[in-house]
Amino acid sequence: MNVSIVRYVVARLLQIEAALMIFPLAVSLLYRESWNYLFSFLSVMIFLAVLGQLLSLKKPENKRMTAREGFVIVAISWILFSFFGSLPFVINSDIPSFVDAFFETSSGFTTTGASILDDVESLSHSSLFWRSFTHLVGGMGILVFALAVLPQIDSQSVNIMKAETPGPTFGKLVSKLSSSARILYLIYLSMTAIVTILLWIGGMDLFDSLLHAFGVAGTGGFGIKNGSITPYENAYVEWVIGIGMLAFGINFNMIYLLLIGNIKQVFKSEELKWYFLIVLGAVGLICINLIGYYDSISKLIRDVFFTVSSVITTTGFTTANFGSWPLFSQMVILLLMFFGACAGSTAGGLKISRVVVYVKILVAEIKRVAQPNRIVVVQYDQKPLGTNTKHGVANYLIIYSVVFAAVFMLISLDAPDFLSAFSAVAATFNNIGPALGAVGPAYSYSKLHDYSKILLSFTMLAGRLEIFPILILFAPRTWKK
Amino acid sequence: MNVSIVRYVVARLLQIEAALMIFPLAVSLLYRESWNYLFSFLSVMIFLAVLGQLLSLKKPENKRMTAREGFVIVAISWILFSFFGSLPFVINSDIPSFVDAFFETSSGFTTTGASILDDVESLSHSSLFWRSFTHLVGGMGILVFALAVLPQIDSQSVNIMKAETPGPTFGKLVSKLSSSARILYLIYLSMTAIVTILLWIGGMDLFDSLLHAFGVAGTGGFGIKNGSITPYENAYVEWVIGIGMLAFGINFNMIYLLLIGNIKQVFKSEELKWYFLIVLGAVGLICINLIGYYDSISKLIRDVFFTVSSVITTTGFTTANFGSWPLFSQMVILLLMFFGACAGSTAGGLKISRVVVYVKILVAEIKRVAQPNRIVVVQYDQKPLGTNTKHGVANYLIIYSVVFAAVFMLISLDAPDFLSAFSAVAATFNNIGPALGAVGPAYSYSKLHDYSKILLSFTMLAGRLEIFPILILFAPRTWKK
Repeated sequence: MNVSIVRYVVARLLQIEAALMIFPLAVSLLYRESWNYLFSFLSVMIFLAVLGQLLSLKKPENKRMTAREGFVIVAISWILFSFFGSLPFVINSDIPSFVDAFFETSSGFTTTGASILDDVESLSHSSLFWRSFTHLVGGMGILVFALAVLPQIDSQSVNIMKAETPGPTFGKLVSKLSSSARILYLIYLSMTAIVTILLWIGGMDLFDSLLHAFGVAGTGGFGIKNGSITPYENAYVEWVIGIGMLAFGINFNMIYLLLIGNIKQVFKSEELKWYFLIVLGAVGLICINLIGYYDSISKLIRDVFFTVSSVITTTGFTTANFGSWPLFSQMVILLLMFFGACAGSTAGGLKISRVVVYVKILVAEIKRVAQPNRIVVVQYDQKPLGTNTKHGVANYLIIYSVVFAAVFMLISLDAPDFLSAFSAVAATFNNIGPALGAVGPAYSYSKLHDYSKILLSFTMLAGRLEIFPILILFAPRTWKK
Repeated sequence: MNVSIVRYVVARLLQIEAALMIFPLAVSLLYRESWNYLFSFLSVMIFLAVLGQLLSLKKPENKRMTAREGFVIVAISWILFSFFGSLPFVINSDIPSFVDAFFETSSGFTTTGASILDDVESLSHSSLFWRSFTHLVGGMGILVFALAVLPQIDSQSVNIMKAETPGPTFGKLVSKLSSSARILYLIYLSMTAIVTILLWIGGMDLFDSLLHAFGVAGTGGFGIKNGSITPYENAYVEWVIGIGMLAFGINFNMIYLLLIGNIKQVFKSEELKWYFLIVLGAVGLICINLIGYYDSISKLIRDVFFTVSSVITTTGFTTANFGSWPLFSQMVILLLMFFGACAGSTAGGLKISRVVVYVKILVAEIKRVAQPNRIVVVQYDQKPLGTNTKHGVANYLIIYSVVFAAVFMLISLDAPDFLSAFSAVAATFNNIGPALGAVGPAYSYSKLHDYSKILLSFTMLAGRLEIFPILILFAPRTWKK
């Protein structure tokens, strides 16, 4: 382990977090909030800036950055971003408990959207802004952002970007990594602006529009009203957010290809095809299952589409209490929680590409077992899937299952019942937010003990970073001399 | 597909089932039961004997039997054994509904032990005997039994035995397959006899002792009293059954090695070591969790050991209603349901060897991802694990998960709640028997609709045969000319 490069990069990242706090500070000034709020952001900003400066005084002599350093940097910086990001809430007393604030901020950066707030409307504008802003930052990635604004670390940082980007494979858009990062952020911010404007046109005020757009963009799902999207009672807003979430669940590489006019390549994408087919199928199945529960067909379709889009993209905005739907519909939703949307999007979960590969491996294994001498090739996107990718995807399910089981056993020490325990792990590990049962869409995570809140905070981080960074950070071998 | 060899072998197997029915017929005569019971077994016996004779009149010209034929023979014969094995119950009206009888018989042969009987004590002696006898036959395998008694199919049948024997690898005890099968059955029946005698000495009458020994041997778990083992109120009986189940969860190859004095090899077995460590760990954790729930420490340890042994070996006998234990204990039990006992035993589930390999793959993947250029070898039993075995084990989890999810979605159309749905699939797919919630140890499966009963019958068969035979049977490619 090259500790000095880790220290140096993390120090620079802390300064970026300090810079990001200018935005809530500006909101605080704009809304003429009390000194208390200004101070909470300003003090943490100054502290982070100074800390970052001190830690980066001594430049690392050895600039070697292997995969391991990449993973460790990603893990540490996400944990520290959540740690320091939670301090303003504690200082201005909007979330007085540190554990609660850490949970809320991890939930924000990991774009989970699980909340411990029973009364979100009591928060100040600056706190609400910072809380939703973490979705925007975490969605595309803290380090991808750093790359976009600090191009000097480019040559060394392919391992960082790999470690942070979700999905089984990693593709650069253009040859230079910092340019890739900048293109991604440009697309990302433009789409966020479009959603903001569309919501604003629909009658939402600008502040609300912006914060909801952050939640949509990061597929995070923090609402700023008690009752998520429901209180707006606005079908147009629900459609904009519903379609918006679905759009942010698409691989950004595909959106880039679309923008440069390479439509052929987009149509070839198996993941995209299955993504839309699964959404369509799930909406259809749940609508059939819910016939009789709704008076209005248009309201039924809107609620179901919104819920499916929200869950498969692991956003977590709600317009309907799906906890009261029949079991089959709830179980379709539970299944979608595991699927997640496309790789290379801001969504969590296993990712559609992995799910598709799993089904293909299933079919291939049946053939192979029935005829052991036959050579069976798994095709993906009209090309044979590479052996390394195939085994990586297969092994990911093992790692995912073992970690899931471990967290599940630990949470069951403190959970009221099976459904709450199981769905709480599913909803945090897959970065969704609302679960079922006692932590369903009608409730918050506030009732859990600190033990569970800390455990689930790390579960969210592990889920967002696809497990490896957190496991590698805690592996004894990483810290051996 | 060589249909004629499938037809021929299945025909011979049906005649074996006819022969097996001599035993319940003898019981019926012994207890001087009414003509109704004699007739039910006799008629099915004669029908099977004649059917088998007719189907095997034309000997197959082509005796080629590939892996595919092996799987198809295993799948068809298990389904037909369950189908015809259920007919006596319907004819003598002990279980008037065919769907119920099919569920009960599949549950028997697959050694699941899930029951639709609310009042098992109302059954005749012959029906009770046949019901438990299916555990004995299914435990070691229908086709392994056929191999032991019909050595003439030896040269062709390695694929049959592979298809039926649970676990990731397959080892012959001695060079000749029919001799291996006979040694296995000799050990198996001797151990069953020992359990019978030990129970008899403890004061159980001979009939009850024999039937419980069948349930222990096959790790099946059909009780013959309402309330499973609880009504005997006999600590000695509970210890005999508890330890007996644990013994039948050991790989029979290990018991053979022990018997021929090769103790060194036995001590080298990682699976065996982990099997005992997991049992010990689970008993310890649950005991700690249950402090305060029991007045007597010895009763606490006995109940917990019995439950852990019953669940990890996927037997399903109960002495305590673990549905009323605290959530953590229930979740330990749920986890053990997935683990199962050793490969090459009569138990269901994933098998300890696979679970151990999964954890090893997890550790290896962390190393490989952190240092992509390093070559990481997974060791098992002090030897590097072969690439094919490793990928087979990894892919098995994919197939297991996909099939589990599919059955789970189908059952949720008809289940009352999440816990019941999830644990019903877990308890049948892993061949345990009692689940949690509405199908917990205090209830039976009788309340489910026919739809769920049929679905779960096939789930039990898929679980016992480790999925592939059933999937290959229904794969369109299998039946293409």
